[in-house]
Amino acid sequence: MPISELFLQRRVEFHETDQAGIIHFSNYFKYMDTAVAEFFRALGLPGPLTKYWGGIREDEIDWPYVRTTCEFRKPARFDDLLQIHIWVKKIGTKSMAFEISFRKGDEELARGELIVVCCKTVGGQPMGQEIPHNIREKIAVASGSVSGTDAAQ
Amino acid sequence: MPISELFLQRRVEFHETDQAGIIHFSNYFKYMDTAVAEFFRALGLPGPLTKYWGGIREDEIDWPYVRTTCEFRKPARFDDLLQIHIWVKKIGTKSMAFEISFRKGDEELARGELIVVCCKTVGGQPMGQEIPHNIREKIAVASGSVSGTDAAQ
Amino acid sequence: MPISELFLQRRVEFHETDQAGIIHFSNYFKYMDTAVAEFFRALGLPGPLTKYWGGIREDEIDWPYVRTTCEFRKPARFDDLLQIHIWVKKIGTKSMAFEISFRKGDEELARGELIVVCCKTVGGQPMGQEIPHNIREKIAVASGSVSGTDAAQ
Amino acid sequence: MPISELFLQRRVEFHETDQAGIIHFSNYFKYMDTAVAEFFRALGLPGPLTKYWGGIREDEIDWPYVRTTCEFRKPARFDDLLQIHIWVKKIGTKSMAFEISFRKGDEELARGELIVVCCKTVGGQPMGQEIPHNIREKIAVASGSVSGTDAAQ
Repeated sequence: MPISELFLQRRVEFHETDQAGIIHFSNYFKYMDTAVAEFFRALGLPGPLTKYWGGIREDEIDWPYVRTTCEFRKPARFDDLLQIHIWVKKIGTKSMAFEISFRKGDEELARGELIVVCCKTVGGQPMGQEIPHNIREKIAVASGSVSGTDAAQ
Repeated sequence: MPISELFLQRRVEFHETDQAGIIHFSNYFKYMDTAVAEFFRALGLPGPLTKYWGGIREDEIDWPYVRTTCEFRKPARFDDLLQIHIWVKKIGTKSMAFEISFRKGDEELARGELIVVCCKTVGGQPMGQEIPHNIREKIAVASGSVSGTDAAQ
Repeated sequence: MPISELFLQRRVEFHETDQAGIIHFSNYFKYMDTAVAEFFRALGLPGPLTKYWGGIREDEIDWPYVRTTCEFRKPARFDDLLQIHIWVKKIGTKSMAFEISFRKGDEELARGELIVVCCKTVGGQPMGQEIPHNIREKIAVASGSVSGTDAAQ
Repeated sequence: MPISELFLQRRVEFHETDQAGIIHFSNYFKYMDTAVAEFFRALGLPGPLTKYWGGIREDEIDWPYVRTTCEFRKPARFDDLLQIHIWVKKIGTKSMAFEISFRKGDEELARGELIVVCCKTVGGQPMGQEIPHNIREKIAVASGSVSGTDAAQ
C-alpha cells in the first residue's frame, strides 16, 4: 500500500531531449530527486525545506541515495506533460524506499525507485541517524499506519 | 566472466557537484551512457560511431535503455579522477546487460547496470532487431566465447 | 519599450546547485531556453508548440541562438523561487533579441540576452527565413507596435 | 596578445545533444567552466586545484562569474572532437577576462568570454580580494608581461 503519495506535474523541456528526439534518460533521476524534495515539502513541517531535505548546515537533514533503479517503457518527448507520482514503498529505522511513476495520460512511461538514508549534518559532515519522530509521523498520516513495513534495506 | 571489458578515466567537473559538496547522482547515468558509447567505439568497427551506437539516420544503430540501476557506496567529489570499468554481463539475441564500476584508487564508489536493446532506424523510427553478427563477434573476441550466456532479459 | 513581456516562476532545484552552494551559472541558459519556449506558447498560435519553436519536422520552426549574454549580480540558491521576465528587445526581418530578467523578490539576480534567428526545417535541415507574418503580428499585439525597432543584428 | 593560452580537447557526448541533433548551447558554458579550471591547474601551483579555483574551504579561492557571452557560428554535433583554446584577455586588480574559442578542425564553431572575480572563502563566505601575487606571476609567464592590461571591468 503506498504511503503518503504525492502527485506532481512536469513538462519535458527542450534541453532535456537528445538527438534521438526523446528525453535523455539521465533526466528521470533529476525528476526523482526533485520529486523527493517536493514530497518532504508536502509534509508541511515547520521551517525551510533544508531542515528536512537537502540540508548542508548544522542540524539540517539530507537523505543520501544508496541505490536507484529506473525502468523505461515508452519514451517521453519534448513538451510532454508528465504526471509524476511518488510514494513511500517501505520505511525502516534509518532508511526509506520511494517509488516513482512517470505517466503521460493513460500510459506509464517509466518507473523508478530510490533508497535513501537519513543523515544529519554534524560538524560539517553527514551522519546517519534514525528518522526523526516528527517526520515519521507526518509520513504515516496519509496511510494511517506504517506498521508492518519492512526496513527499506 | 566479464566480456569485452573497457577501461576509461574521467575527472569530476565542478558543474557536476551539488551543494552537498559531492557529485550529483544523476551524473553517474551520463557517465554510463558515455562509457557505453566508448565501449562500441573500442570494438573498432568501420565507419562512424553512429553506425553502431547513438545513430538516428537510416540504418544506423541505437541501443535504447530498458532498465538501469546504480548503487552508491562512497561519494565522488570535485576533481576526483574516476576509473570506470564497463563490461558485458550478459548478451542475448536482441539485448545486452552492461555492468559499470566506478572506482577511485582502491575504492569502488558506485556500481551500475544498464540493459539495452538493439534498434535500427527504419523510416525514421527505432525498430528492435537482432544484434548484428559483426558486432556480436567483436564483443565475443575479448572473452573467447559468448556461448552459454543468458538473454539479458 | 519591452514587447510582449511574459512572466514565469521557477524554483531552483537541488541538482542545479554546485558545491559553492549556489546555482551553477550554466542553468541560467537552460532557464532562458525554456522561457523562450513559453514565450512562443503564450502567443497562443494554433497547433503544437513545435510549429513555432523547437520544431525539427518538415515545415516546423526553430530559432537557433546566434549569441547570448548573461550578467550575474547575486547568487540564486536551492529552493529560491525565481521570477523570470522575458520580452522582445528588438525584432528584425529574420532575427529577434530577447531580454530576460531573473528576480528574487525585489532583487534582480541576473539578466540575460538571446539573439535568435528564424529557421524552418526544409529537407531535414534548418533554413533561415523571414519571421512569419502571423508570429510577428502576435508579438506586436502586446506592445501596439513593432515599428521603429531595429533589426536584432 | 593572449596571455597564458591553454589548449584542451573535448568530445561532444550524446547527453549533450538535443532533438535538433546538435549540442545544446548551455553545454558551452559547462565547457568554459571546466576550461577555466584546467587553466588554473596548468599554472602548476602547489597543492590541490581548489586552493586556486573552485575552492569552498577556508582560505581556498574561487572565481565567481560576473558576466559571460558566447557567439554560436556553426553547430557542434555528437562525437565531434572540439579543440578548446582559453586565454586571459585582460587582467585587473581583482578580476580577469577569459576568452575561449571552440574549433572543429579549421572552423571556429563558437567563441565565448567569461569575466571572473577573485574571491577567498572567509568565514564560509566568498570575499572579493586582489588576485594573489603568485597566481598573477604564473599567468604573466606565458606572455612575458601583464603590464598595460586594463582592469577586466
